[in-house]
Amino acid sequence: MAFDPASLCYDAQGLIPAIAQAEDGQVLMMAWMNAEAVARTLQTGRVTYWSRSRQAFWVKGETSGHVQRLVDFRVDCDRDCLLLVVDQRGPACHTNRQSCFFTAVRDGAEVELMAPVAG
Amino acid sequence: MAFDPASLCYDAQGLIPAIAQAEDGQVLMMAWMNAEAVARTLQTGRVTYWSRSRQAFWVKGETSGHVQRLVDFRVDCDRDCLLLVVDQRGPACHTNRQSCFFTAVRDGAEVELMAPVAG
Repeated sequence: MAFDPASLCYDAQGLIPAIAQAEDGQVLMMAWMNAEAVARTLQTGRVTYWSRSRQAFWVKGETSGHVQRLVDFRVDCDRDCLLLVVDQRGPACHTNRQSCFFTAVRDGAEVELMAPVAG
Repeated sequence: MAFDPASLCYDAQGLIPAIAQAEDGQVLMMAWMNAEAVARTLQTGRVTYWSRSRQAFWVKGETSGHVQRLVDFRVDCDRDCLLLVVDQRGPACHTNRQSCFFTAVRDGAEVELMAPVAG
């Protein structure tokens, strides 16, 4: 079946959450896309989000160089969430850590799981 | 640092997205939590979402038996998304597939990656 970005279920702001996962299984980040960002990501193979704070397209890595190349694009059963398997150049997180999910809650306390990448 | 569910960033509906990932790295599903669901998940070790359609707590597996036991609870850099590492009993998806992300978009077409679990 041909895929149409308009067939996805967007929220009231026209956005759908997109989870980025590295090929080794590490979940890197979650951000948002609109239909045009979905189309651009599929067309270009460069993962492109919609920045809610800047209200603008956000080609991941455009300023940092920490580009995400699309490896596989997946849709969930309700068509209201995306899972992007990506080839991540450099750290995915703006704090310079590999993943944005670097904090765990264990025994009621917050624990830092990874340090910023040197460089 | 002690963890307080109120320290997370919830949306206008008081919800935060929560990604469930199996210990082998497979991303299973994404659903939503409110602060009380976060607290219950940490207290009980049974992953508890907030169902937006039913407007009620949703203890995953309560009716299906496909329980998620919490293995690790992670928070992202912006504190507006959760990553739950879980021990998933049975398929995570209501379609009886292991993961909700069973559809890929490849060369412009939708491809089914996994079949429902027999049972």
